[in-house]
Amino acid sequence: MTYTPHGKHLIGGEWTAADITFSSAPASGTPHEFSEASEELIDEAVKAAEAAFWSYGYSSRKERAAFLERIADEIEARADDITAIGTAETGLPAGRLQGERGRTTGQLRMFAQHILKGAYLDRRHDVAIPDKTPPRPDLRMIERPIGPVAVFGASNFPLAFSTAGGDTASALAAGCPVVVKGHPAHPGTAEIVAEAILAAIEACGVHPGVFSLVQGASYEAGGALVTHPLIKAVGFTGSLKGGKALFDLCAARDEPIPFFGELGSVNPNFLLPEALGHRGKDIAKGWAASLTMGVGQFCTNPGIMVTLAGPEADGFAKAAAEALGEVGPAVMLTEGIARAYRGGAEAVAGAKGVETLVKGKCEAREGAPALYRTTGKVFLDNPDLAHEVFGPLGIIVMAADAQEMRAVAERLEGQLTCTLHMERDDTEFARTLLPVLERKAGRLLANGFATGVEVSDAMVHSGPYPASTNFGATSVGTLAIRRFLRPVCYQNIPEALLPEDIQHIA
Amino acid sequence: MTYTPHGKHLIGGEWTAADITFSSAPASGTPHEFSEASEELIDEAVKAAEAAFWSYGYSSRKERAAFLERIADEIEARADDITAIGTAETGLPAGRLQGERGRTTGQLRMFAQHILKGAYLDRRHDVAIPDKTPPRPDLRMIERPIGPVAVFGASNFPLAFSTAGGDTASALAAGCPVVVKGHPAHPGTAEIVAEAILAAIEACGVHPGVFSLVQGASYEAGGALVTHPLIKAVGFTGSLKGGKALFDLCAARDEPIPFFGELGSVNPNFLLPEALGHRGKDIAKGWAASLTMGVGQFCTNPGIMVTLAGPEADGFAKAAAEALGEVGPAVMLTEGIARAYRGGAEAVAGAKGVETLVKGKCEAREGAPALYRTTGKVFLDNPDLAHEVFGPLGIIVMAADAQEMRAVAERLEGQLTCTLHMERDDTEFARTLLPVLERKAGRLLANGFATGVEVSDAMVHSGPYPASTNFGATSVGTLAIRRFLRPVCYQNIPEALLPEDIQHIA
Repeated sequence: MTYTPHGKHLIGGEWTAADITFSSAPASGTPHEFSEASEELIDEAVKAAEAAFWSYGYSSRKERAAFLERIADEIEARADDITAIGTAETGLPAGRLQGERGRTTGQLRMFAQHILKGAYLDRRHDVAIPDKTPPRPDLRMIERPIGPVAVFGASNFPLAFSTAGGDTASALAAGCPVVVKGHPAHPGTAEIVAEAILAAIEACGVHPGVFSLVQGASYEAGGALVTHPLIKAVGFTGSLKGGKALFDLCAARDEPIPFFGELGSVNPNFLLPEALGHRGKDIAKGWAASLTMGVGQFCTNPGIMVTLAGPEADGFAKAAAEALGEVGPAVMLTEGIARAYRGGAEAVAGAKGVETLVKGKCEAREGAPALYRTTGKVFLDNPDLAHEVFGPLGIIVMAADAQEMRAVAERLEGQLTCTLHMERDDTEFARTLLPVLERKAGRLLANGFATGVEVSDAMVHSGPYPASTNFGATSVGTLAIRRFLRPVCYQNIPEALLPEDIQHIA
Repeated sequence: MTYTPHGKHLIGGEWTAADITFSSAPASGTPHEFSEASEELIDEAVKAAEAAFWSYGYSSRKERAAFLERIADEIEARADDITAIGTAETGLPAGRLQGERGRTTGQLRMFAQHILKGAYLDRRHDVAIPDKTPPRPDLRMIERPIGPVAVFGASNFPLAFSTAGGDTASALAAGCPVVVKGHPAHPGTAEIVAEAILAAIEACGVHPGVFSLVQGASYEAGGALVTHPLIKAVGFTGSLKGGKALFDLCAARDEPIPFFGELGSVNPNFLLPEALGHRGKDIAKGWAASLTMGVGQFCTNPGIMVTLAGPEADGFAKAAAEALGEVGPAVMLTEGIARAYRGGAEAVAGAKGVETLVKGKCEAREGAPALYRTTGKVFLDNPDLAHEVFGPLGIIVMAADAQEMRAVAERLEGQLTCTLHMERDDTEFARTLLPVLERKAGRLLANGFATGVEVSDAMVHSGPYPASTNFGATSVGTLAIRRFLRPVCYQNIPEALLPEDIQHIA
């Protein structure tokens, strides 16, 4: 590893440290000391963001696009160092860090292109009708940036959902300065990415308050950030418990603000009879691969497979168990996550009416695949089985019949994704399930697994609570920019005073 | 008055009553008894809405447009009865009720046309790229209705923001069934409009659960409605206190839901030097007219006029006082509103450093114009002066200089509107204020008054808290439909299973 973290916060263009520190806990290599953000430092960072808004919030889309592109370039210029420190801190393999870096720079460039097109501004013009009763004034509408945004780094995506990830990229694209609270599981990765953003700020001559990184391992730092009066919205990817606590703080502010939290999901799969009969074993293998990818540490991890009980389902379970049995233990993102995973697996294993099919041995910071089977009835009677266990854990739910399968679907909480495995002859069966699943999830899939989340125009990474705290928004894809915009109407405002983007419209 | 209210709730197509009743308190004519909604009746209404969603949420845009048009027709068929009962209950003049009826039917027809165009669906299609690494699946996105919506009637708009008002029209247009909690200030008006909607339901063959009206004078009814697990969003126009209480209930649910509250505003005006010099007296007259329209009972009522101290400002104040002095007392919407108005006026009059210019006499359910003047310094030192007093009350704030005027702008809470009165030579002055005001309000005006809210594509009736609880949404104009939609992504879903609107896109 050639990059050695200095352990400071980036605040308004300066690297700053406070007295209290915390230690990083890398999966490999040396721990480093990082300064823990005080309330004063967070206040400085947010005030710098507010100061930056008066220029950055009025910058041209071309300027912001160039800035986003430059951030992508600066990240690429630090590629090997980012991979080195990222793999050391998270225990994820180098290929994953490289892929995630491509996703991160791709996202930044996608938003650069997206704002240049301008459709996201949703510009509207109602021309004056002076002889109407009452007369209609000239009305122009445009989506404007909302002000400083707080973003929380995610434990499981050190790049794509962290310092320069989708929340930051979409907020910066909208014209909003960002204060990132780095995740303590990968503070060095956060720091080097912040170095890249600082280099882009300097190269593009952007106000340095446009981006700050504050580090911290305490809950207090996050609370101080989201309750700061100048913060206007929050982007968060993480656990239900942590996210709900921050959501509550946002709602209880003197001025409540939106909390865009993506909080997790069990991403149920429904394996329909014809698909089970024709491709059951292949689907079992694909499921095992998806379930164990990244040690199951994806919000789109397919934790539940619902199918119809019978010999074919037994064969499916056997094939899935075989495939999972071949996957050994692997290091997880943090010791806390590994501990929570093992605790969650034990709770499932101990639940009444649940049979353990696979239970790999693992210790310390490791997670090994686990597979369970139960009946539709048991699943319906025990709501705990429908809660996410973050890691490579699968439950096969054997429904007695189609009606019970539908009952399982109806009982689901909000999900990021729901998946159907189906053949053409399953269409009528699928037709009874799809309307139910559509109300449960932001994304519906057929014959695939949800763990690959395409970054594109049509992607939705969201869903009813608890999958997300705002079912109307998405944290992935170009629509993510809408979270950081608000419509403003200009009535008879002289053209010279209008924002440039709304001056010349039809 | 030819229509005599029966005092029942409309629930799933049936008129139903419970034992407990409350009395209406009309400004003129006979009070009537209305059934008070129990928790059981509210549960029935919401369950009927949920049942209706399975057909109505999947109806075609053409079907929903015909339904909206028919509601407008049925309201028109009851025009005279609606005006009669509306004027009696609210004390508003017949002309106002007639105008508001036109606004209401116009809104319904606007949403009918809007959904037929289909742009609101924001359809997106990322075609599959099989040879990409990893392969890109077929991804289609569309905005889908969210499920049953709760709507609260507003005291000050018995038609346009009540039973078949903008919230109901936009939710029905989106495909969401609606449960309306009628405002107890005009339950008979709510009832006859519900009769119109029921006639449209029967004529169009729509599931009768698509619309219910529950009446009630208690806080409990509203609380029971917004905390019902099957309600997915709330539309509300009303007071900060009542709205904030419902907002908190929505945020504290097991499944938090969005509360779209439009909570009021003082709608500050900034009178710039050249406009003051050239047109001060005309602006004073216009302001007085806007301030007293509808006895000042508009959320866009222009309660504060900020200008620069000096002889011209003194002349402006004199002209405004003269114009307001000519306006007598008038009956307000409810006794409670009249009492709160007089209390608010007394508090302003008693504040240190505030001079009373006009204080009309009024009693019981009346409100008379009141005008006060103070300095920028006093206004900045006393945040209470910036709070809304619902009624025809104006405060002239004499800023010492441009800097103090800007300080007043910076100190403002979120507003629905901010207005500049300016001449061409005020442009540079305006340029220093506009960015500040843009962050404070959903609509910015030049040389007009905010009390006329055009219903159109470019209108924004929203703003930072406390003007509204969702600065990203609007409750007036076609964009209002977005509140009741959520994006759903379909990945490789067979075309036969897709919602009709997303089957055939490029």
